[in-house]
Amino acid sequence: MASVHPVRLSLDPPLDPSAYAFHHQIRVRFAETDAMGVVHHANYPLYLEETRVAWMRHLGHSYADGRDDGVDLAVIELFVQYRKPLEFDELVTVRLMLGKQTRMTFQVGYLLSVGDEARATAVTVHTCVDSTGRPVRQPEWVRSFAADATS
Amino acid sequence: MASVHPVRLSLDPPLDPSAYAFHHQIRVRFAETDAMGVVHHANYPLYLEETRVAWMRHLGHSYADGRDDGVDLAVIELFVQYRKPLEFDELVTVRLMLGKQTRMTFQVGYLLSVGDEARATAVTVHTCVDSTGRPVRQPEWVRSFAADATS
Amino acid sequence: MASVHPVRLSLDPPLDPSAYAFHHQIRVRFAETDAMGVVHHANYPLYLEETRVAWMRHLGHSYADGRDDGVDLAVIELFVQYRKPLEFDELVTVRLMLGKQTRMTFQVGYLLSVGDEARATAVTVHTCVDSTGRPVRQPEWVRSFAADATS
Amino acid sequence: MASVHPVRLSLDPPLDPSAYAFHHQIRVRFAETDAMGVVHHANYPLYLEETRVAWMRHLGHSYADGRDDGVDLAVIELFVQYRKPLEFDELVTVRLMLGKQTRMTFQVGYLLSVGDEARATAVTVHTCVDSTGRPVRQPEWVRSFAADATS
Repeated sequence: MASVHPVRLSLDPPLDPSAYAFHHQIRVRFAETDAMGVVHHANYPLYLEETRVAWMRHLGHSYADGRDDGVDLAVIELFVQYRKPLEFDELVTVRLMLGKQTRMTFQVGYLLSVGDEARATAVTVHTCVDSTGRPVRQPEWVRSFAADATS
Repeated sequence: MASVHPVRLSLDPPLDPSAYAFHHQIRVRFAETDAMGVVHHANYPLYLEETRVAWMRHLGHSYADGRDDGVDLAVIELFVQYRKPLEFDELVTVRLMLGKQTRMTFQVGYLLSVGDEARATAVTVHTCVDSTGRPVRQPEWVRSFAADATS
Repeated sequence: MASVHPVRLSLDPPLDPSAYAFHHQIRVRFAETDAMGVVHHANYPLYLEETRVAWMRHLGHSYADGRDDGVDLAVIELFVQYRKPLEFDELVTVRLMLGKQTRMTFQVGYLLSVGDEARATAVTVHTCVDSTGRPVRQPEWVRSFAADATS
Repeated sequence: MASVHPVRLSLDPPLDPSAYAFHHQIRVRFAETDAMGVVHHANYPLYLEETRVAWMRHLGHSYADGRDDGVDLAVIELFVQYRKPLEFDELVTVRLMLGKQTRMTFQVGYLLSVGDEARATAVTVHTCVDSTGRPVRQPEWVRSFAADATS
């Protein structure tokens, strides 16, 4: 049952909040809940993306600017582990850390919590693409993530 | 960087369509695209869920019936590998296979393709919960997935 | 409390199914429900859009083709009247009729029902825009809607 | 082409920001854009809902509290007029005003703008329902909206 496409995702996001370089807060919308009464699992990636955008703005590399330069950050892998449901109106703290960075890809880890309670962890793997979706070399502002993340 | 919560997901979804027991077709909605001109990555889990529901109906275990019995199938892990973007109006074939099944969880693998072209693979891990979200023993109709899937 | 922008929407969608020229069926996704246990009101426009696209394909004017020609159909007004909630897994029949068509805009009316029961009515008002979002004259295939709709 | 169900919506939301009693800011998510490069029209109701929830919290009547009391505010009508598209990463100011309030329903008007520029106006009509979706008399905290809104 081997895949021809190697799974690149290797980051195991820690539960210790101090391991994360950045955090962002998001309040759960009612529209994000489902008939189980909690946030639908497909909405977690929206929280991850909003946090990445806030992180990039914090680093001085606005995602919108990146798009104007013709470089988009495509998501090529996604992993979410759901520990305890998020509920409507909860204020979620999404913590973010930069993981392994290669010439073509970089990994980002996330811890979602409400108060002291971990609700989910997640990983996204990204590659840079041009406006036609073709992979391109990471521009300097992407390569500089590593330096920024550890500073 | 060890996690206290073991990652349960172990299935590596094959690219060979014949490995899958079930398939379902979904046409991409315009609302599912984003400003990159392709389907936003957070919408893939919606296709997986629609396919699971169609699969369960095919097996004679309607998901709606399951909910009426007070048993929901919660998603506890999600993995998606995006190979080539999906575009508006494309007709996506989502293939589904049952993976490892334990007393508390089961894994489902997916291959998303358009024509002969693989666009994504994915895995979801599920556990049964009652109406308050508490994990419960798998009812008979869930345990019978394995037999159905290989028949 | 006058608005400088006149409200263009004038269509009052009838409850009589026979008044509609086209229909399309959509099964409610679990992800479309919310914590009230029914379909969230923001998801109805997705059903309207999917039905418009199916209608245009039926008329031989694929929406995807339209986009390739550089013409998008922007929504400039939306009205929905929710009569009775839609539930998970229900099979919704969305009926569509063409309303008033001017040089720059056209209205579309909808009736959403499950079996014989009306669940919602809706109206969308559209204008043609180019790839930069600027309003453009309706191409021939849009002007021909009226003829097609009454044939 | 008369409808048996009277259209209740009568509010015409003004473009003058000073007419609104409350405002709330929302940053556009990338996931909310579509292949036209702007916010998809079905996402505007999410902004309206987030703003209603923030308004109710501001008034001291948390929507989450309301749900705990067994009273939900169902949306029975929705109207949106799209003037100029919203783009990714824009900071949208959503202004809110209370409109006509009857024994069973109340109307809410909205003005969405970026800086000084009006992008959309909208109206929602609400009724109170119990946990089974049945209309119920407005509780005191809903009837008090009018007094709060004009204070």
